Amino acid sequence: MLHTVDIIRKKRDGGELTDEEIRFFVDGYTAGDIPDYQAAALMMAIYYQGMSRRETVTLTDAMAHSGDTVDLSRYGELSADKHSTGGVGDKTSLIVAPIVVALGGKMTKMSGRGLGHTGGTVDKLESIPGYRTSLSTEEFLRQIDEVGLAVIGQTGNLTPADKKLYALRDVTATVDSIPLITASIMSKKLAAGSHNIVLDVKVGSGAFMKTPEQAEELARAMVDIGKDCGRNMAALITSMDVPLGNAIGNALEAQEAIAVLKGENNGALRDVCEALSTQIVSLTFGWSPDEAARRVRETLDSGAALAKMREWIAAQGGDVAYVDDPSQFPAAPYAREVLAPCDGYITKMDAEQIGHAAVLLGAGRLTKEDTIDHRAGIVLHRTRGDRVCKGDVLCMLYSGNEDAFAQATALIERAIIYQTDKPTDIPLIYSIVR
Amino acid sequence: MLHTVDIIRKKRDGGELTDEEIRFFVDGYTAGDIPDYQAAALMMAIYYQGMSRRETVTLTDAMAHSGDTVDLSRYGELSADKHSTGGVGDKTSLIVAPIVVALGGKMTKMSGRGLGHTGGTVDKLESIPGYRTSLSTEEFLRQIDEVGLAVIGQTGNLTPADKKLYALRDVTATVDSIPLITASIMSKKLAAGSHNIVLDVKVGSGAFMKTPEQAEELARAMVDIGKDCGRNMAALITSMDVPLGNAIGNALEAQEAIAVLKGENNGALRDVCEALSTQIVSLTFGWSPDEAARRVRETLDSGAALAKMREWIAAQGGDVAYVDDPSQFPAAPYAREVLAPCDGYITKMDAEQIGHAAVLLGAGRLTKEDTIDHRAGIVLHRTRGDRVCKGDVLCMLYSGNEDAFAQATALIERAIIYQTDKPTDIPLIYSIVR
Repeated sequence: MLHTVDIIRKKRDGGELTDEEIRFFVDGYTAGDIPDYQAAALMMAIYYQGMSRRETVTLTDAMAHSGDTVDLSRYGELSADKHSTGGVGDKTSLIVAPIVVALGGKMTKMSGRGLGHTGGTVDKLESIPGYRTSLSTEEFLRQIDEVGLAVIGQTGNLTPADKKLYALRDVTATVDSIPLITASIMSKKLAAGSHNIVLDVKVGSGAFMKTPEQAEELARAMVDIGKDCGRNMAALITSMDVPLGNAIGNALEAQEAIAVLKGENNGALRDVCEALSTQIVSLTFGWSPDEAARRVRETLDSGAALAKMREWIAAQGGDVAYVDDPSQFPAAPYAREVLAPCDGYITKMDAEQIGHAAVLLGAGRLTKEDTIDHRAGIVLHRTRGDRVCKGDVLCMLYSGNEDAFAQATALIERAIIYQTDKPTDIPLIYSIVR
Repeated sequence: MLHTVDIIRKKRDGGELTDEEIRFFVDGYTAGDIPDYQAAALMMAIYYQGMSRRETVTLTDAMAHSGDTVDLSRYGELSADKHSTGGVGDKTSLIVAPIVVALGGKMTKMSGRGLGHTGGTVDKLESIPGYRTSLSTEEFLRQIDEVGLAVIGQTGNLTPADKKLYALRDVTATVDSIPLITASIMSKKLAAGSHNIVLDVKVGSGAFMKTPEQAEELARAMVDIGKDCGRNMAALITSMDVPLGNAIGNALEAQEAIAVLKGENNGALRDVCEALSTQIVSLTFGWSPDEAARRVRETLDSGAALAKMREWIAAQGGDVAYVDDPSQFPAAPYAREVLAPCDGYITKMDAEQIGHAAVLLGAGRLTKEDTIDHRAGIVLHRTRGDRVCKGDVLCMLYSGNEDAFAQATALIERAIIYQTDKPTDIPLIYSIVR
């Protein structure tokens, strides 16, 4: 007969929990038989003592099977999923998914809504009129059969153990633990059913992981756990010191994604999307990295990826006129410039603070109940490393609420730092973990 | 504006909490505004990171003032309290209190009931017919005015923060933390109002602290915290490798205590009671340890302490005929001998297991709802260091339930270990911390 207090004490003293003990805890906590206070004590003990690879695999698997799971076995080894640990201006899913599917993969995403300074993929898609973020299971699978691709909001009772544990960790200062982050992310990915999983682990001032070493440790843990659970895994460590791309805000980001697919935007955003797509198709089709990279570029350059996005948006009810002519996206009623206060090189452009500014403008939610203004956001005209003169336009702010500009401008002014010398470059992609 | 999660994170990362943060937590938790799960996470963080002396003082003080407090200020510096960390056969309060009061002190005890393998002082007193363990505040203070002494069950809403936190720590594996034990014990002592406090910190197989070093660390922490809160403090580290005295069980222990006060029992129990009383009266009256020890012996030898016990029991409604003639205590209906299984020296007599055997016989409670058989218990005829021959009577078991003997005997047989050589002595009193 297992007792929760004995499990807590064992972990507290640095012991390795058995599979039976871990499953007893996950099942009991999910069912409500183990109270929050015992779970909180165990999470804090794990924060200090860590978990072995085997313990983390068992925890991940138990959480993955704590509720419904998506069965994609009919697609064999063709199903693919991409997950980002979250960043400001990260619209890569909108670009990567059509690339991978145009090359023959099957991509399904169940995406959360944005909270705080990072936006959610379904929020961005909802800026296209008509796009349906909830499909029945039959509609979902039929669309993957026919189009190869569906992106919907979270549905059903997937990983209830993770939902409960994450909410608890958030208020008990037990979020930043590598095995607990690993189990949280990977349990959701396992439950979502894809065979090939590529992770985009962000590092920098706008990311949860502040150093490349921390990010690599997390990426290595997630890749190892995914492999131990029978999935093909890879992870990219990418920079989140500045926002990714120029646009922050839902309709603005959708437009930027379409521009990349049209070949009209060839900066850092396209580079990260190519790198992610390369990893996914390399895993999915067994192509060498060089061949995978070549095919990804071809698919972008030929317009095949754009055509796939058009097909996908149409299948899911969205108005493809917006894909064809992004100038149709309605503009926000108010716009405001932010000007450079001095001459110099931009040496810092804090992604997290710029994300918060976008939230103030109406682009995101501070609480789950907030509604989003899809038109609101920020378009950056300058980025880190650029030389500016006093009075140059740094960025444009867009909002439905003119009163929000003062506070958003103040946040952005604090987020940008200047020096007289050109700063050294920060890598866009630090490393690949496979 | 303080947030509990920030307080947890600060302690988790080894920070020192401010007085404001600690009081915010204690007040919020007592009021039910801070949930158990955040308290559990904070307790586990404190388990790992500890608390500074200042933090512990503030925690103790905040817990002491979380509910009612007893005002003994009318007795100036004469009020005294004695606390034991709990041991098997520990009936010292019944002996120490009349000694101290016969010498001019004022002693008040609010004592818990026994749970598990250690008995409670009020349970022992209730074996004397008529003894009232609950008095109104007026009765309580009048008795202290007139007799100098009252021992009652816990009353009112003393230290609700400790009650809540202790129950939580018990089920979250966060009991064994020196600052948390210190705050728990000392908050109750501070709320109980006495100016002079002497602690009996038990060490050994039957105690929570297993080594003299651990016990001294705890004693030092409690003495320091009590001093910082303005009390006179001392602690004795005493052995709990074997039960203290010969009797375990409520009426049996009351009889043994009376025998000590009558000068009929001059073993280890009297030695510990003299040492504790010496510390208390030395603190209370400012006497040198030698003078204090001399006066304590005189008070025992002259019968003054016995007379004070008689006066106390009578004042609190108990039948003094039982003090005058302890053979009046009713015997248990069943008695059973436990015999030595071999020749040899007794090298171990595990106090905790013998305590559990007494509980099985009916002398204690396994749950709060259990009722006690005051007649039940164990009288030891031999102790550690004695040479025994096969078939000698080791102890007598007493119970109202004949069926309990088999299991209790088995426990005692496992608790006693023999060797061919005489074992080295274990100190009865390890050290004094002031």
